Amino acid sequence: MNLKEFAKHINLSASTVSRAFRNSHDISMETKERIWAKAKELNYQPNPLASSLRSQRTKTIAVILPEIANNFFSLAINGIESIAQEQGYHVLIYITHEDGNKQEAFLNSLQSGRVDGILISLSNSEAGKVPAELANKLPVVYFDRVPQDEEVLRVTTNDYESAYMATEHLIKKGCRKIAHFYFELHLSISRKRMDGYLDALRDHKIPVNKKLLLDCTRESHSREQIRTLMQSANRPDGIFSSIEKFALQTYEVCAELKLGIPEKVKVITFSNLQTASLLHPSLTTICQPAYDIGQKAASLLFQKLSKKQGSVSKKHFILSSELIERGST
Amino acid sequence: MNLKEFAKHINLSASTVSRAFRNSHDISMETKERIWAKAKELNYQPNPLASSLRSQRTKTIAVILPEIANNFFSLAINGIESIAQEQGYHVLIYITHEDGNKQEAFLNSLQSGRVDGILISLSNSEAGKVPAELANKLPVVYFDRVPQDEEVLRVTTNDYESAYMATEHLIKKGCRKIAHFYFELHLSISRKRMDGYLDALRDHKIPVNKKLLLDCTRESHSREQIRTLMQSANRPDGIFSSIEKFALQTYEVCAELKLGIPEKVKVITFSNLQTASLLHPSLTTICQPAYDIGQKAASLLFQKLSKKQGSVSKKHFILSSELIERGST
Repeated sequence: MNLKEFAKHINLSASTVSRAFRNSHDISMETKERIWAKAKELNYQPNPLASSLRSQRTKTIAVILPEIANNFFSLAINGIESIAQEQGYHVLIYITHEDGNKQEAFLNSLQSGRVDGILISLSNSEAGKVPAELANKLPVVYFDRVPQDEEVLRVTTNDYESAYMATEHLIKKGCRKIAHFYFELHLSISRKRMDGYLDALRDHKIPVNKKLLLDCTRESHSREQIRTLMQSANRPDGIFSSIEKFALQTYEVCAELKLGIPEKVKVITFSNLQTASLLHPSLTTICQPAYDIGQKAASLLFQKLSKKQGSVSKKHFILSSELIERGST
Repeated sequence: MNLKEFAKHINLSASTVSRAFRNSHDISMETKERIWAKAKELNYQPNPLASSLRSQRTKTIAVILPEIANNFFSLAINGIESIAQEQGYHVLIYITHEDGNKQEAFLNSLQSGRVDGILISLSNSEAGKVPAELANKLPVVYFDRVPQDEEVLRVTTNDYESAYMATEHLIKKGCRKIAHFYFELHLSISRKRMDGYLDALRDHKIPVNKKLLLDCTRESHSREQIRTLMQSANRPDGIFSSIEKFALQTYEVCAELKLGIPEKVKVITFSNLQTASLLHPSLTTICQPAYDIGQKAASLLFQKLSKKQGSVSKKHFILSSELIERGST
């Protein structure tokens, strides 16, 4: 039985039936349920691939992100997913594992119409952004790790201000030798955090010591780098970490070296760790609004997908992070 | 330009070109690269929906799970994704948020060929398993939260033995009033853990006190339930939690009530928490092989999808968890 024949059975137009199967908002819930019940009764299954070809809509969005075993990204996905569900969309998730080549391969595989739109947080590399040919074809919204490009639609937290605030927090707590653990300066998020750190030091007339700037991009090395720094003559009395992981490694290293936190060294980090308050000592964090960032990015994408295509004139949406002071500072 | 015309340009058969675009293992890497380069040069894009219709393969699998902001599931997804990638498959992720109706709606939406196979961890409800009509059409592999059905293909950890081991660990540490925090006894995983707990008590001749069995299924209430128990005359001296979340709530409650862990109460939990060793005190865990469970489940699915369809004769694959003793016991 094809769609037309099925529609005849239920005395409705093929277009109504088709929209009901796409769960369109145009069709009342009552009609949809009547159609679905009839389909069940007659064991009729619409073919979604064929219907996608006709409507040119896959009802699917892609989310591309560096990793998933990470509180920021898993919360952001929950936010994205809550919006997609409202819109009757499916979410395809791609994990790049910080590999620029994988990111490129995923994007290539999306070239030919597998999804209607893309949400992406860039991988930790020089891979760069979505190629123009793809971005011309599909709406794209970047979140968190966005390219250095004023023209793209993007949602981030206030990275510069948060980093400034974190550094100033350490200064106010008496720290003078403040280290910054960062990753991948190719990402604008990392540069903004670095700038916030440097400007806070400058405004408080604390000279920059380059030996306290730790590039932890090679993640397999970061723990050893932190250990070396903490055993050196340049041991910092405060650490501002750009990434949760490096702060946790600092905790491990300090436990091994019997360096008390916060007595010997104070620690603050960007983090969405649920257990931050239960750590020993509890961890002072800059907490990003991860769920809200996901929701906002998804909302923008659907705005672009809807008829109001021209309506997103603002390009950069900034949601504020929050400093939560705990035992580590 | 259609596929045939493109194939002519490069002097290959349409079938070879088509398989190259599907990244088939039949075609050498060299040939594939030649085809891809030519496609780029000519700006030719194969249409994946049309080609899916022809091949009846979507090259996509669905992963349905209760939540994602959870270390077990995010690690399991990484495991699944590593196998899917090897096979050139895309992964569609659906999050049920423990809602049986959502699970049912997702499964219904997969009825008509959006994916080639399904990996599912059941939602925390009576929603039940994949309907027979769908399971007859597509291969399905359950992981972690599996139905009580000997006939389905499934991958779990050794829940009964792990729960027995956890309870016995508390007994050996001197606990006699051992509480068990569980959720949703409709799930076989929960029943097995309960059985392991009860049998360990019985074998050590410790009578069961029903007041120490806390049903934390309504997650919004669990913290209050734990608080009430810890303030009651029935305060336990040991807690075996089925879920990481309840153990962390126990930590919070004990901090509020100034009940020392492990002096006043010892705590052990199923958990894949990365920060278990950094908590105050460090948390004794039953650590599930989450990544391996994801990999195994995905491997079984692809085995079913490949030509060796009849070859999966064993139905239940059990990967062992590990008890990691830390400060909380």
